[in-house]
Amino acid sequence: MNGAESIVRTLVEGGVNTCFTNPGTSEIHFVAAMERVGALRGVPCLFEGVAVGAADGYARMTTKPAATLLHLGPGLANGLANLHNARRARAPMLNIVGDHASFHRRHDAPLTSDIEAIARPYSAWLRTSQSAVDAGQDCAEAIAATQPGRIATLILPADAAWNEGGRVGRIPETGEAPRAGADAVARAIAMLKNGKRTAIILGGRATQGEALMLAGRIAAATHAKLLAQFAFARLERGAGRPIVERIAYVTEQALAQLSAFAQIILVGAPAPVAFFGHPSKPSVLTPEGCDIHTLTSAAENGCGALRELAEALAPPHTRAPLAGLARPAPPTGAITLAGLAAAVGAFLPAHAIVVDESITSGRGMLAATRDAPPHDWLVNTGGSIGIGIPLAVGAAIACPERPVLCLSGDGSAMYTLQALWTAARAQTRTTVVVFANRTYAILKGELAGQTDARQEAHLGDNALLDIGRPDLDFVGLARAMGVPARRVTTLDEFGAALKAGFDSRGPNLIEVPL
Amino acid sequence: MNGAESIVRTLVEGGVNTCFTNPGTSEIHFVAAMERVGALRGVPCLFEGVAVGAADGYARMTTKPAATLLHLGPGLANGLANLHNARRARAPMLNIVGDHASFHRRHDAPLTSDIEAIARPYSAWLRTSQSAVDAGQDCAEAIAATQPGRIATLILPADAAWNEGGRVGRIPETGEAPRAGADAVARAIAMLKNGKRTAIILGGRATQGEALMLAGRIAAATHAKLLAQFAFARLERGAGRPIVERIAYVTEQALAQLSAFAQIILVGAPAPVAFFGHPSKPSVLTPEGCDIHTLTSAAENGCGALRELAEALAPPHTRAPLAGLARPAPPTGAITLAGLAAAVGAFLPAHAIVVDESITSGRGMLAATRDAPPHDWLVNTGGSIGIGIPLAVGAAIACPERPVLCLSGDGSAMYTLQALWTAARAQTRTTVVVFANRTYAILKGELAGQTDARQEAHLGDNALLDIGRPDLDFVGLARAMGVPARRVTTLDEFGAALKAGFDSRGPNLIEVPL
Repeated sequence: MNGAESIVRTLVEGGVNTCFTNPGTSEIHFVAAMERVGALRGVPCLFEGVAVGAADGYARMTTKPAATLLHLGPGLANGLANLHNARRARAPMLNIVGDHASFHRRHDAPLTSDIEAIARPYSAWLRTSQSAVDAGQDCAEAIAATQPGRIATLILPADAAWNEGGRVGRIPETGEAPRAGADAVARAIAMLKNGKRTAIILGGRATQGEALMLAGRIAAATHAKLLAQFAFARLERGAGRPIVERIAYVTEQALAQLSAFAQIILVGAPAPVAFFGHPSKPSVLTPEGCDIHTLTSAAENGCGALRELAEALAPPHTRAPLAGLARPAPPTGAITLAGLAAAVGAFLPAHAIVVDESITSGRGMLAATRDAPPHDWLVNTGGSIGIGIPLAVGAAIACPERPVLCLSGDGSAMYTLQALWTAARAQTRTTVVVFANRTYAILKGELAGQTDARQEAHLGDNALLDIGRPDLDFVGLARAMGVPARRVTTLDEFGAALKAGFDSRGPNLIEVPL
Repeated sequence: MNGAESIVRTLVEGGVNTCFTNPGTSEIHFVAAMERVGALRGVPCLFEGVAVGAADGYARMTTKPAATLLHLGPGLANGLANLHNARRARAPMLNIVGDHASFHRRHDAPLTSDIEAIARPYSAWLRTSQSAVDAGQDCAEAIAATQPGRIATLILPADAAWNEGGRVGRIPETGEAPRAGADAVARAIAMLKNGKRTAIILGGRATQGEALMLAGRIAAATHAKLLAQFAFARLERGAGRPIVERIAYVTEQALAQLSAFAQIILVGAPAPVAFFGHPSKPSVLTPEGCDIHTLTSAAENGCGALRELAEALAPPHTRAPLAGLARPAPPTGAITLAGLAAAVGAFLPAHAIVVDESITSGRGMLAATRDAPPHDWLVNTGGSIGIGIPLAVGAAIACPERPVLCLSGDGSAMYTLQALWTAARAQTRTTVVVFANRTYAILKGELAGQTDARQEAHLGDNALLDIGRPDLDFVGLARAMGVPARRVTTLDEFGAALKAGFDSRGPNLIEVPL
């Protein structure tokens, strides 16, 4: 067995059975090994940003890593922006990056670059395989290193892939996530008993499953407010789930939202800070004097800590105020942002996965879907736009029976639109809605907040913030990549298109001109 | 004046008058300053890979830097693959990367990353401005650092942009490129006199202008053969220029091409090596015992060294064998690769700029255009696909009166197809030909060269090397971004489409299904 095959077999042994890829010559033996072994599904992508974003979506839904297979330094470089997001999402991911054969590197051929230097800022674990004999064990250690939510990058020189002598690696045990310290738990309990107004901010995996339900019980018993960090990876919500309010993006709104709290308990979430610094607004969003306590970091066992809190504070019969099942009426008439949100609330199928990169256009979506049937909500965790459609495709591949709704701004969609082709190839259940306001609207908003009125008026028309002239035709773009698409001009049409899209059980796109 | 304005004014002072950009919030004061100052043209791009690739094309045509304006670590990351190519092209380029305000960095907001670490592998010069007072001078030094062909990256924290106190920087003198040593010149002269079979390999800027003409004279007088490095940045060719043969991509062909030479003189070019290492083929393409002499490195003054050689070896009346003016007849009938090349040869306008990322489909193009009217030929210098269309757009913006022909494979085109929108916005004279073979054909070729016949047959159908199913509709993609497009099914139609495209004096696309 060659080195490439030893890696493929080790991946399969370790439960990694999906590989998002755009391979090149240096990965060709790996591609051949995948075909020989057969148990590692390759998902072709036209651009590496799509591969990495899809691997993130896959990981967020399964909590296990997908592999990516990338072509030398440039292939890795094309994936870095979405790797930035994945790192912030604490998504487990294993990048396999082909490199020149070891004997070829010294010749500085055109594709030569320092791949370790390129990968280092993004990788919690990083290694270059030294030979085919080592490759399998390197891969085994990389798999372990992705847990609980880390990025591992294994660089595979072409000769380490093609040489014989490969051996399937033995995957090290990965321990449980570390428990919160007894002091941290005791302090949280004392805070929740002292009568002060308290918010519990959930992040990491505490926005899901048992941890979320426990947080709901604790909040109900202690009158604490449940919040989610702005950049959460996956929030379980809708009917039957505790109601969790997302911290707002707009600084003024977040300040108002947090102003009431004398205490904050962080469960896997960072302390709330503004997305950007501002000449005259605070970076820290919590009121002065607010007592902020980290119960668990994102790497620690948030669910375990919440269990201890619940045992101390919230008897099992405590009734958390869960979301009910109440959809907005299907809206009609002219398109408004509120109407678009209501339509999503009215038609979102049960167990949907919503990927939200709608930026300015989708700010009413969470409120309108609060009491929709149970669903998961995924957002951009690192602020690097162009994650939405890839994330949706990866989530759909992870959960092929669940409908996926991707809400995207037009600017964001154009970053990694090639993901639509992967959706068509894999026939994923992804409905992509593009809100086409022909502008980087968020920048105009930021500009309005940062400059005086005269300048603002001047820049409202700045050509660099405007992505019309010519307008992008997202229906044409989608169809040209094999994805059925339609444009809607009323809320009635939008609702009907959503319903038809979900019913199609395949990829589809809806353009909403704004 | 604030720090941003001091940079804009310094750029203009330094002759940098074009900025390819996709700005974000952290760059908003820079955008406002551009609008106030007015002399720095902003070219909007939907993706940073487009911005960087266009800046490369601009630099290759003008030998002066364009600026790029990029949004924090992720915006820079999206440009890295084409920065890899630009570094290999020795294109001067000045990247300005916005960062969080200095006081905001410590809060580790979602978009925070180590921008210096991300930029370092690609940047010959790298600095983070510490204040608005420093920003202008930092920029001045960055401009100087781009010469003669280097990448400078200036990181601009948002508060260094918005704070007052900016001062226009004073641009340091940049010296001439260092001369070749007297020994190096003497050795080259001796080699060219000793009667052995000699090749002169041109690279860097020696493929252009006076250097090229001198090389032609020297070759004629000494019976040396003129070659160009495979990954040249810009080769001037066509009628009236010396005939320079490109070193072949395919290892066997390059070995055969170089086998005759006992001596090689390198002028701004690296010694020829294979693009990839191979289990059973050599990395070094020159015959054993070949005497390889570096007359000048790419950073040295190749033209000056060639002038010394010419004075010693080639009297001014030496007649170099220049290309004549002889076009192939316009081909007709069914599409063949040879016929496509002939059509380009038949219709290429005088003073055209050809950007060639046609990979496997375009290998006959150079031969068919050898005696076309004078034109420039630009290729992918770093092997990172997705440079073609951005490079063409940047070259067209640099030289608005010259027609630009971009030859692209379908796989390459899908990397940075968003460049078409910039072409539409700026109405560049770019004719983009996409050879749609629905596959990563080069990989199938590599695979055939690396595996035994049984495996090769098996992988000929590998789904990961195949970008059909569904087929991409490039006509639809182009039109959806505002670029007129047509599909051709015969050579007659292809020729007519080329002619119509050039005549349109605007952006257009031709899809050639193969």
